[in-house]
Amino acid sequence: MDNTGLVVDRSPLPPEIDGRVAAQLTFVAEADRLKTVLRASPLAAADRRENDAEHSWHLALMVLLLAEHSDEPIDVGHALKLVLVHDLVEVYAGDSPVFDAASVVDQHEREAAAADRLFPLLPADQARTVRELWEEFEAGVTPEARFCKAMDRLEPMLLNWLNRGGTWQMPGATEATVRAREAGVVAASSSLGAAADLLVEHGLRNGWIRRSPS
Amino acid sequence: MDNTGLVVDRSPLPPEIDGRVAAQLTFVAEADRLKTVLRASPLAAADRRENDAEHSWHLALMVLLLAEHSDEPIDVGHALKLVLVHDLVEVYAGDSPVFDAASVVDQHEREAAAADRLFPLLPADQARTVRELWEEFEAGVTPEARFCKAMDRLEPMLLNWLNRGGTWQMPGATEATVRAREAGVVAASSSLGAAADLLVEHGLRNGWIRRSPS
Ligand SMILES: [Ca+2]
Repeated sequence: MDNTGLVVDRSPLPPEIDGRVAAQLTFVAEADRLKTVLRASPLAAADRRENDAEHSWHLALMVLLLAEHSDEPIDVGHALKLVLVHDLVEVYAGDSPVFDAASVVDQHEREAAAADRLFPLLPADQARTVRELWEEFEAGVTPEARFCKAMDRLEPMLLNWLNRGGTWQMPGATEATVRAREAGVVAASSSLGAAADLLVEHGLRNGWIRRSPS
Repeated sequence: MDNTGLVVDRSPLPPEIDGRVAAQLTFVAEADRLKTVLRASPLAAADRRENDAEHSWHLALMVLLLAEHSDEPIDVGHALKLVLVHDLVEVYAGDSPVFDAASVVDQHEREAAAADRLFPLLPADQARTVRELWEEFEAGVTPEARFCKAMDRLEPMLLNWLNRGGTWQMPGATEATVRAREAGVVAASSSLGAAADLLVEHGLRNGWIRRSPS
């Protein structure tokens, strides 16, 4: 659907619904748009690109199963909240593929404008909470945010591996840019960083990642 | 992709990866299949059916934003774990639409067989943990499971409302079966139950739900 108006405008909620609940359901309906935002990454189990909503679920599952590998102790429940909201602003700002230099240029401005439009649909206290979660993820300073960002790097690496190329084949991807992504995994987890390094080493050897000119 | 073999067979992981990490990544890769399992529910923001992975994300977001409405106090972090894993067995068992009586008949057996095949891909301790989370959700006895099941009822009701019909138009759906779904929301939350009741009342009035023969 187009980007103007709200999803809930398609079929306005019954007016008798309590105001706070109605605001929350309006936001939940608007979040449905995340299922329509396509990423560059191909799925492993089907021949199509991944959308932001299923990507967010996959990261949450990875947080749950891989948290033990975080070099610093993390609060798993808090980390789950970070990944669940980390891409929400893309309902209006769209995805900015990391290997697409042009799309990354004004990413911050577009996402900040989207946040200002999206989060205030919630009751004010929750708008503040969700914005703080999003900003914590973006800043990547807390152990939880660092680990979630590592999952956000590792998941597309795994999808690329399973596709024997994937976004590693995009024009902007080279060993150097792929290594820069790997560094985000290494920063949070030495054991998962080691696994990511093996994916890159073998990916280079298999010709799935272009070697940088030396 | 077909249902035999593992997703990771497409591109076997480098053999040097640590055994525990390799088992976890094998499971994470297999979970990619959840993005290909289609539910009966239509999206609100696009003209296609919802898949299980994006559905699981949407439930998790609802748990995060609506937990305050639970009639009993719940541990949000624990509830998030329940919804993240609640549909995993459908990677092999497929979705069983609630308004499709035939598909529900052997649902329990199919899902139990899927669990026996899927969960042991994980290291044994985690296989046990994930199975316990899934069984807790299925039993619906703890406050967290009850609330998560309520979200699993409310989300498709909201999608149906936004589609002015959706699965409420399926042959097996009538006021009685829709009311039975609504009861799952009421059981966990009086305030969200009241909102669900208004969706059904107005849905009946608008002709989006068939009245049961009296
Ligand atoms: Ca993103």
